[in-house]
Amino acid sequence: MKALVYHGPGKKSLEERPMPQLACATDAIVKVTRTTICGTDLHILKGDVPTCQPGRILGHEGVGIVQQIGAAVSTLKEGDHVLISCISSCGKCEYCRRGMYSHCTTGGWILGNRIDGTQAEYVRIPHAETSLYPIPAGADEEALVMLSDILPTGFECGVLNGKVQPGSTVAIVGAGPIGLASLLTAQFYSPGQIIMIDRDASRLEVARRFGATACVDSRVVEPVAKVMELTGHVGVDCAIEAVGVPETFELCEALVAPGGVIANVGVHGVKADLHLETLWDRNISITTRLVDTVSTPMLLKTVHSGRLDPARLITHRFHFEDVLNAYETFGRAADSHALKVIIEMS
Amino acid sequence: MKALVYHGPGKKSLEERPMPQLACATDAIVKVTRTTICGTDLHILKGDVPTCQPGRILGHEGVGIVQQIGAAVSTLKEGDHVLISCISSCGKCEYCRRGMYSHCTTGGWILGNRIDGTQAEYVRIPHAETSLYPIPAGADEEALVMLSDILPTGFECGVLNGKVQPGSTVAIVGAGPIGLASLLTAQFYSPGQIIMIDRDASRLEVARRFGATACVDSRVVEPVAKVMELTGHVGVDCAIEAVGVPETFELCEALVAPGGVIANVGVHGVKADLHLETLWDRNISITTRLVDTVSTPMLLKTVHSGRLDPARLITHRFHFEDVLNAYETFGRAADSHALKVIIEMS
Repeated sequence: MKALVYHGPGKKSLEERPMPQLACATDAIVKVTRTTICGTDLHILKGDVPTCQPGRILGHEGVGIVQQIGAAVSTLKEGDHVLISCISSCGKCEYCRRGMYSHCTTGGWILGNRIDGTQAEYVRIPHAETSLYPIPAGADEEALVMLSDILPTGFECGVLNGKVQPGSTVAIVGAGPIGLASLLTAQFYSPGQIIMIDRDASRLEVARRFGATACVDSRVVEPVAKVMELTGHVGVDCAIEAVGVPETFELCEALVAPGGVIANVGVHGVKADLHLETLWDRNISITTRLVDTVSTPMLLKTVHSGRLDPARLITHRFHFEDVLNAYETFGRAADSHALKVIIEMS
Repeated sequence: MKALVYHGPGKKSLEERPMPQLACATDAIVKVTRTTICGTDLHILKGDVPTCQPGRILGHEGVGIVQQIGAAVSTLKEGDHVLISCISSCGKCEYCRRGMYSHCTTGGWILGNRIDGTQAEYVRIPHAETSLYPIPAGADEEALVMLSDILPTGFECGVLNGKVQPGSTVAIVGAGPIGLASLLTAQFYSPGQIIMIDRDASRLEVARRFGATACVDSRVVEPVAKVMELTGHVGVDCAIEAVGVPETFELCEALVAPGGVIANVGVHGVKADLHLETLWDRNISITTRLVDTVSTPMLLKTVHSGRLDPARLITHRFHFEDVLNAYETFGRAADSHALKVIIEMS
């Protein structure tokens, strides 16, 4: 089969690889129909993810058709149309029982990281019954690719951890795909304000179309002063960090109101300064989270009911033969205005 | 009347001051019977608390007898025996209605800070009906002085924010009065382990008597390795920071298990390093809080029922004429082994 393989920092190639085989009775083999590229794939290619070793097939998102099931799989069958979760979960370990699938002792984020991933014609999915989600008949397959990772990430790490409530004020720092996923799903809870902060006017324009009540271009306007002006000089109930660098995290520290939450979504490579000298008495919370994908069934229902339209995040489409071109387009998002790129397997 | 007055960094004196007067219809004047000294008073004396200006009568803890009430006070009367909360709360503003009395727009921590405090024969208490708590007949007055600040602080900022649960593992960094208050009140919830970490063997010995399941002297033992050994190499569900310096906060970052909470109790003067590069995907929470004293009625019941004995924190007693000596004893706790010192007013 064809697969996109990581060969160390800066190196990848589309090449022939052997078909994946069932390795465990709880596995399934899925024929991938559509996949996408994540910011995390770019991190891997920079050499920032040491758990992902050269020779690994990339990708942790996608939809497909169950091709083969292990002997212990009873709730799925060959031919089932399924969404592949970026998080593999056994459903049995202590973390899974607490809903912390991200820390599953034999799963978590392993696809396209510790085991071969979805940017291939076929993929082996461990713990198939609790890591694949049947897709309702007639669903828009492209839209559902967004539910493998980006929508549950923006929703769980940003909106749920941020305790977004009716009437509350929300700032989202970073209008990339993840920040926009938080923006779309924050609206489930009818917040009073959603203030989007970024340095890219084109992404802010998308945010405005997606429902932001205010957009702050931090190259043009000092964002703390602006947010204070917009919130009666108290700050926001919920500050969602959707970039992953110290400056944006520290901006959230300056934006959060007494009693508020900083919900970190970004992937960080270095420490940030935590200004406890101003925050110790402000009754705030800071949360971190690797997406658990516990909300995937809920999100599938919101797509089915028409409340959520994740296809709005898709800006480009490629055939798998052009996957290198897809990476190139996704990687220079500032020029290409790419948000999410769909890769069709043919 | 006699009062202990702050005169700028390093300077205080016991002197004659005019009797406090009712300034507002919701005020009460309380004749203080017993008070105590807080670590925060020492911070003020170091010049670390700019809101507390020279000329201020110190103190935010105590019990006493209502001497006079304003025209709008109906739930208290002259002669009532009352506990003075360190937090004044109007009960009416948005923060008070959310239970965040610490951020009351006309109250909060003002006693012995922005207005004259309790280390005096008489004190004016604003918002008297919602800032004083009637003391049950026959109660041990000394024990209840501990409920002005230290017990609700250890309980709310440490135990409640830390979500201590039956069977959970708790580490408390700092075995001073506040850490010990967290230790005493954590036991309400039957945690599986309470590991106390300090550099003072004598305080750790107190912690052992107070119910710690393990005591780690961090001068002798590397605390991270020890806590990992004690918790099956996963860390603690709840790490309570009860010191207020970067090293101890950063120690908590290293101790917390995936899915756990770092509950900050310490008063910090400088920033700490937040190691987001290791914490971003660990599904943890960090909480900060200035005590709200919402739990004061609950704590009064636990004292009344015999479940909590706060008098165990009292190591020394002084008459008010010896208040300078009391400060001296409290200030050199490492030698004097002082935890809380009771100051009797007559």
